[in-house]
Amino acid sequence: MSIEIVAIGNEVLAGMILNCNATYLSEKLEDEGWQIHRHTVLPDDPGSITLGLQEALNRSLFVINTGGLGPMIDDITLPCAENIFDQTPQTIHNLVGSSSGFLFRSTHKTLILLPGVPQEMESIFEQSVMPFLRPPFPIENKRFQKTTYFSLIKELDIDPFIRNLKARYPKIDCGIYPGFGVLPLKLRSYDQALLEQVDLQIEREFKAHIFHSKSGKLEEAIQDWFISHKKTLACAESCTGGSLASHLTAIAGSSDYFLGSLVTYSNELKCRLLGVSSETLCSKGAVSEEAVMEMVEGLLKVTKADWGIAVSGIAGPGGGTPENPVGTIWYAIGEKGQKPIAGTLFARGTRQMIILQTVNKVLGLLWKRLSHS
Amino acid sequence: MSIEIVAIGNEVLAGMILNCNATYLSEKLEDEGWQIHRHTVLPDDPGSITLGLQEALNRSLFVINTGGLGPMIDDITLPCAENIFDQTPQTIHNLVGSSSGFLFRSTHKTLILLPGVPQEMESIFEQSVMPFLRPPFPIENKRFQKTTYFSLIKELDIDPFIRNLKARYPKIDCGIYPGFGVLPLKLRSYDQALLEQVDLQIEREFKAHIFHSKSGKLEEAIQDWFISHKKTLACAESCTGGSLASHLTAIAGSSDYFLGSLVTYSNELKCRLLGVSSETLCSKGAVSEEAVMEMVEGLLKVTKADWGIAVSGIAGPGGGTPENPVGTIWYAIGEKGQKPIAGTLFARGTRQMIILQTVNKVLGLLWKRLSHS
Repeated sequence: MSIEIVAIGNEVLAGMILNCNATYLSEKLEDEGWQIHRHTVLPDDPGSITLGLQEALNRSLFVINTGGLGPMIDDITLPCAENIFDQTPQTIHNLVGSSSGFLFRSTHKTLILLPGVPQEMESIFEQSVMPFLRPPFPIENKRFQKTTYFSLIKELDIDPFIRNLKARYPKIDCGIYPGFGVLPLKLRSYDQALLEQVDLQIEREFKAHIFHSKSGKLEEAIQDWFISHKKTLACAESCTGGSLASHLTAIAGSSDYFLGSLVTYSNELKCRLLGVSSETLCSKGAVSEEAVMEMVEGLLKVTKADWGIAVSGIAGPGGGTPENPVGTIWYAIGEKGQKPIAGTLFARGTRQMIILQTVNKVLGLLWKRLSHS
Repeated sequence: MSIEIVAIGNEVLAGMILNCNATYLSEKLEDEGWQIHRHTVLPDDPGSITLGLQEALNRSLFVINTGGLGPMIDDITLPCAENIFDQTPQTIHNLVGSSSGFLFRSTHKTLILLPGVPQEMESIFEQSVMPFLRPPFPIENKRFQKTTYFSLIKELDIDPFIRNLKARYPKIDCGIYPGFGVLPLKLRSYDQALLEQVDLQIEREFKAHIFHSKSGKLEEAIQDWFISHKKTLACAESCTGGSLASHLTAIAGSSDYFLGSLVTYSNELKCRLLGVSSETLCSKGAVSEEAVMEMVEGLLKVTKADWGIAVSGIAGPGGGTPENPVGTIWYAIGEKGQKPIAGTLFARGTRQMIILQTVNKVLGLLWKRLSHS
């Protein structure tokens, strides 16, 4: 069954905010077996809204619209929809918040209006819309899907395998989605047995690069490992500036294994909190094998964690040198009672991209180390 | 001049990734005075791509498309565009990376194809597309704009003022965009003098809530204050788990004032690193006025920072109690030699939303304190 998602909002078209609502709805609907046919974003004017909704309803039986429903002066979606359907809608009550959704139905077409504020939209969708989309419109042929997550491998290195897969199994629909450090490969098929067979082939081929977690996040796979092994982790961060810790603590339950992070942004704090020697910082610099080794050793001592990660690098845009250009990162992974290992990696792009790549690569390296320990 | 942005990609429609490219392009084009008429996301199949591009070209003179240009098997945008225009395109070379963009032109219509990988798309757009969009297609009536950023105020509290503004000054186009803690108000007009006059009124009306920074981020306004006042800052984080530090260090140049953050996720680290007493943690709990006061006092002592922020709360979904439900946050702001002040706030939503709201509110409170000190 195909469905379209429309968002109303000058703020999205002006690049002020991301259309996160479309991403959220798409993911939920895909998981239920719907195919999302198109996303559209329309400006806050009655003519464009009416035209855009009409076009979407001409193409698809179901349309979900977010935004333009609130008490603000720009909020004009409801009257536009009433004109199209020439009816007043059914109200979809919000069991938690104050705002409501609306449902329009004609013989063949269904339009659902949801508020634009993500919390409210999500609560109405999960409580009232998703159950409604299930029973009266059964998805006759259930489509099965399996997502496999890869770490520390490039899309181009998987592509030949995917091409081969697509040629050999035309009944499997598969796609790989570029990201920063984690690559999800999504398989979909109406044939469950075939799907499982192909999934096994992929697991065998890329064993060293595949990790498993419900959310598809490395930090969740890492958390699962630590909790099941009853071990603790701490971080010492310089260039990632708290991002490594914020990724790890974004997973509920992280307090069961994660002790904390010493974000030693200044050299003085590296010395004072982690015991890095000022000689090392002077002679080798903060972005060096020696510095990250001392950081991780100090970290394990101070926090008494079972495992530790230290990262120091140049996130840019300034601060690069001919020896250590922007994007140069040193990391060290340490285990209590063992000699830590250190390594270097290079990240590219803006400051934000360098930090994100560093976090994902370091998490990938930690996960690899854990899964082979 | 109006323009549409199209993205190709099943990964966007499946909710695997956000359409950040549309946001990036919209923001850049808006700043140059273009009006973005619509965003569309299309699936990776030739029929849908051809139809969607054709529809966009029927509505608008200019269309920019991202995605579907790489070496992967799904990348089929180029042949679809060649069919529509019945011509081979002009190549737009990428001065930095390896991938290229493409330009199609007929008498009235222009279609620009850019790669989907953000780094590559952005570098081609900035080097080759933006300059191209300027001279041959001059924007006759330059539209001026001014964005004002509000902190610690709700959209509903600004709305009556905006309604009044819109009624009084129909030549001013204005919109306010909901966010987590920071509200941007964008004014646009072809009349520069009027724009400045209205801007002054807003500044007067909401003086206590307006901050100024190039990026519209509180953390940049905070950084500007610290650098100009030659002061340093450090954080002690519990529930925000490194997010506060990662927001502050996301701004280039933050190492000029930001010393670091002690992410003391476990109670043991709160005691060991910050000197919080175990009596306080036992009798009052880690989410209490007493705990954050001791955290910020210990932080200032350990880091020797001029200013410090401490945050402790319950990000959920677990860990809530009748006295301290999920979303309860205590914070303290301290200045060297002064008694710190502590306060509490409540955040709502998912774990991720609670963390983000906490970061933005605490940054707002710090900024307010700084701007009145």
